[in-house]
Amino acid sequence: MEKTDVLIVGGGPAGFTCALSARNIYPQKKITLIRKNKTATIPCGVPYIISTLKKPEDNIFSDKPLVDNNIDIMVDDVIDFQGGKAVTATGKKIEYEKLVLATGSRSKSLPIIGAKLDGVYTIKKDFDFLKEFKRKLKDVNDIVIVGGGFIGFEVADELLKLDKKVTIVEVAEHCLGFAFDDEFCELAEDEMRNLGADIITGKKVEGIQGKNQLSSVVLDDKTKLNADMVIISVGYKPNIELAEKLGLRIGESGAIWVNEYLRTSNQNVFAVGDCAEKKEFFSRDAMKLMLASTAMAEGRLAGSNLYNLKVVREFKGTLGTFSTRFGNLSLGESGLTEKKAKRLGFGYVVGNAEAVDRHPGKIKDASKLKVKLIFSSPYSHTLLGGQIAGGKSVGEMTNILSVMIQKGLKDIEIDTLQIGTHPLLTSSPIAYPIIKATVDAILKGTKQSQ
Amino acid sequence: MEKTDVLIVGGGPAGFTCALSARNIYPQKKITLIRKNKTATIPCGVPYIISTLKKPEDNIFSDKPLVDNNIDIMVDDVIDFQGGKAVTATGKKIEYEKLVLATGSRSKSLPIIGAKLDGVYTIKKDFDFLKEFKRKLKDVNDIVIVGGGFIGFEVADELLKLDKKVTIVEVAEHCLGFAFDDEFCELAEDEMRNLGADIITGKKVEGIQGKNQLSSVVLDDKTKLNADMVIISVGYKPNIELAEKLGLRIGESGAIWVNEYLRTSNQNVFAVGDCAEKKEFFSRDAMKLMLASTAMAEGRLAGSNLYNLKVVREFKGTLGTFSTRFGNLSLGESGLTEKKAKRLGFGYVVGNAEAVDRHPGKIKDASKLKVKLIFSSPYSHTLLGGQIAGGKSVGEMTNILSVMIQKGLKDIEIDTLQIGTHPLLTSSPIAYPIIKATVDAILKGTKQSQ
Repeated sequence: MEKTDVLIVGGGPAGFTCALSARNIYPQKKITLIRKNKTATIPCGVPYIISTLKKPEDNIFSDKPLVDNNIDIMVDDVIDFQGGKAVTATGKKIEYEKLVLATGSRSKSLPIIGAKLDGVYTIKKDFDFLKEFKRKLKDVNDIVIVGGGFIGFEVADELLKLDKKVTIVEVAEHCLGFAFDDEFCELAEDEMRNLGADIITGKKVEGIQGKNQLSSVVLDDKTKLNADMVIISVGYKPNIELAEKLGLRIGESGAIWVNEYLRTSNQNVFAVGDCAEKKEFFSRDAMKLMLASTAMAEGRLAGSNLYNLKVVREFKGTLGTFSTRFGNLSLGESGLTEKKAKRLGFGYVVGNAEAVDRHPGKIKDASKLKVKLIFSSPYSHTLLGGQIAGGKSVGEMTNILSVMIQKGLKDIEIDTLQIGTHPLLTSSPIAYPIIKATVDAILKGTKQSQ
Repeated sequence: MEKTDVLIVGGGPAGFTCALSARNIYPQKKITLIRKNKTATIPCGVPYIISTLKKPEDNIFSDKPLVDNNIDIMVDDVIDFQGGKAVTATGKKIEYEKLVLATGSRSKSLPIIGAKLDGVYTIKKDFDFLKEFKRKLKDVNDIVIVGGGFIGFEVADELLKLDKKVTIVEVAEHCLGFAFDDEFCELAEDEMRNLGADIITGKKVEGIQGKNQLSSVVLDDKTKLNADMVIISVGYKPNIELAEKLGLRIGESGAIWVNEYLRTSNQNVFAVGDCAEKKEFFSRDAMKLMLASTAMAEGRLAGSNLYNLKVVREFKGTLGTFSTRFGNLSLGESGLTEKKAKRLGFGYVVGNAEAVDRHPGKIKDASKLKVKLIFSSPYSHTLLGGQIAGGKSVGEMTNILSVMIQKGLKDIEIDTLQIGTHPLLTSSPIAYPIIKATVDAILKGTKQSQ
C-alpha cells in the first residue's frame, strides 16, 4: 500500500497549480499527483494541434515544475475508494490525509441518431485521442461542426487553415451567444464566414447518416449537409463519478458542491477546477463555467488551505473572463454581458467606444478595437462587465477589465484612470477605448437619471 | 475683442481632452482652444515619422472630435495677458471666464560648445520642424544621439531602419535608468546594440565640433565620435512663461503649482499636462513627469471641474505608467522601481517571473516575458510597482499593473486573481507571470519575516 499526505487526482491546470501551491505552503508534506495520461495536454491549446502546432507533443505541460517541487507523479486512474484509501485501475491502494479532486470535465455528446457512427468526434483533452484525430483529418474534406461555441470556432479556424470545407451548425440564434452580446457575435460570425466557413444558426441537428462511411448531417428543417467528418462540440460536463463514490454532495449545477474554500461536504476532500461548482460573481447563483484560468485560481487557493485556512479568500464568486482569436479577430469578455445583466435583473447603462489599438492609426499593424462596458445604474456605478473585439491586445485588455470588475471600480474612477500608452503598443491616450466607453456610459447614465 | 467662456491654451493631449471633458459637463459654455500650429502633432508618435510613418501628416490629431463637440479652434499664440484678457501674437484680445494652461513642454538643450551648430537638433513636437527634420535626414549618415532615454531609444530604432550609423551617448551608468532597474536597462541596451547602435554610457558630451558642417562629438574622456548630425535628447522642460506672466505660483519642480483639482494659485486658472506640477503617487513629493496619458487624466478632471467641483478626484498622486518598444523588445513600467522604492525609503520585497506570452510556447509569435514586481513588506503587502519586458502584450499588461497599483492591490489578492488566458493571446494560466512574480514575492516575504 502506498501512503501520501496530499493526494491530488487529476493533472490539469487545477491539479497542477494546487500541487505547486500546496508545496509552497506545506513544505514538509508528501504530495502525490495522480493522472491518467503519461503526458498532460494543455486544455486551451487543444484546437491548435490541428494546424498551428505541428503535433500534439507541442501542446503538453512540462512535468518539470512538479518534479522540481518534489511532487510525486503517478500515472494511473483512481477508480474507487475503500476505507479512506484511493483504489487505482492497476490495483494500487493509496492512503491519504487530504484528497483533492481535480477530475476535470469531458465533452458532451448529443442524443441523436448516428452520434456514435465512425467519423463522429467530440474533442477530448487527451493526448492519444488527439494523435489519432490529427491522423484522421488527412482523409476527410467536408467537416460539419455541431456547436458554435469557443471550441467550435477555434477548431473551425484551424481546419480552414488545412483547406477543409467547414460548416458550423448552431442551435441558438447566434454563435458564441453565451459569452457575448449579439453585436459581438455578429462580428465573430462575419469573421468566420470571411475565413471560409458556412454558418447555420437557429437549426437543430436531427441526425447523422452514413453506412460504411459517414455521409451527411440532417437538420430539423431536413437540410442535408455533406459530411465525411462530424465534430460535436456542445460543451463539457464535470467528471463527478469519484465524488459520487465518496458520497459527496453534488451542487445544483451538477458539479461537486464546494464551499468558499473549495472544500466539499467532506472536510478532508477538496474539489477544484471544472469538476467543482462555481458561484456567479455578482449574484452568487450556482453556475457552470469551465475555464483553465478559473481552475488555476481555485487550485492555488485550495492548495494553500488544505490543512488550515492560511489564505483568506479574496475573490468573490467566479468571474468568467474569456478571450479567443480566429482569423484576424480577437474577442474578450469579462463579467456580465448586457443580456446576462438583464436576465439577472440588474439596472444598468451601456457605454460603447471604438478606437484603433495603435496611434496614430497609420502604424502598420493597427487593428480596430470595439469596447462595450456595462455599468450598474443609476445608483452603484460599478463596472459589471465588458466585451472587447480587436487585435491581439484584446487578451490583456480583457484582463484589465477583469481586475477592474474584481476590485469593483466605479465609472468615475475609470474616467480619470492613469494608464500608459505607446504608439506601437496601445491606443492613443485620447482615444483609449476603455476610458472612452466609460465616459459614454457616464453621459448616458446622467441623462437617464435626469 | 473676442469673448469666450473657457479658453484653453494648447492643443496637445491635455488641452484636447480638457476641451472635450468640459463640453460634456458644461454643454452651454463657449469653449475655445487656441494653439500655435494649424495641425496638432501627436507627441508620442513623433519618433515614428522618421521611418515607420511615411510623413509627419500621418501623425496628427484629427480636429473632428473638437469640431463635432462645438469647440472653437483658433490658430494663434497667446503671448501675454492684460486685464483678464489673453493677448495673442496676431494682436487679438480674448476675454475669458476660465483659463486652462495646457502649454506643454519643450526639449532641453545642453550648455556645451557647439550646441547651436547647424546639424544639431532637439526633437520638437512641432509639425513644421518635423517636416524639415525628416528632409535633413536624407543628407546625413553618422548620427550621434545625446541621451539614452525613451525618445533617444525610439529615435535610434527608427534611424537604424533607415540604415543610419547611430551612436547613443548616455551620461548615466545605464540608458533608461530613470524608468527601469538595471537588469531591464541591460535588456534594452542589448536589444539596441543588436539592432546596430553603438551605446556609450557613463560619459559626458563635452562639445560638438564642426566648421562649415558638423564633424564630431567630443566626450569627456576626449573620445571623438564622427557625426554629421547630432540629436540632443536630454529631456523636456515645462513651458511656464505664460504662468509667470499671470503671476502664478511655480512649484518646487519648476512646473506650475496646482492643487488636487489642477487649479493654480489663481482660482480661475487651471494648468494641465506637462506644464503642471505632479505629485509622486506614494510619497506625494513634487515630481517631474511628462506623459500624454497623465496629461489626459488631468485634462479630463480639470475639464469637469472648471466651474464647480462636479467630479471628485479619485486618483491619488501621479503614477508614471510607461511603455515603449524598439526592435523586438517591448518594455513597460508602472509605479516604483526597486531603485526608487529604496530611494524613497520603502520596505519592500521583489518578486520575479519569466514566462512565454503564448501557450504552449511553440505558438509562432511567442515572446519571452520577464516580470519584476515590488511589494511593500513586511506589513502592507501592497503592490508598489512593476516592470515588464517582452512582446507587444507588454503595453496592456503594464496597464493591468497600473490599475492594480491605483487600486492598492495586495500580494494575496493577486495570488488568486481571476484572469483570462488564451493560447494565441496570453501566457498560460499556470505560468501567468504577474501572478507567478507575486507568488515569488509572497514566498520571499514570508521568509524575510520569519
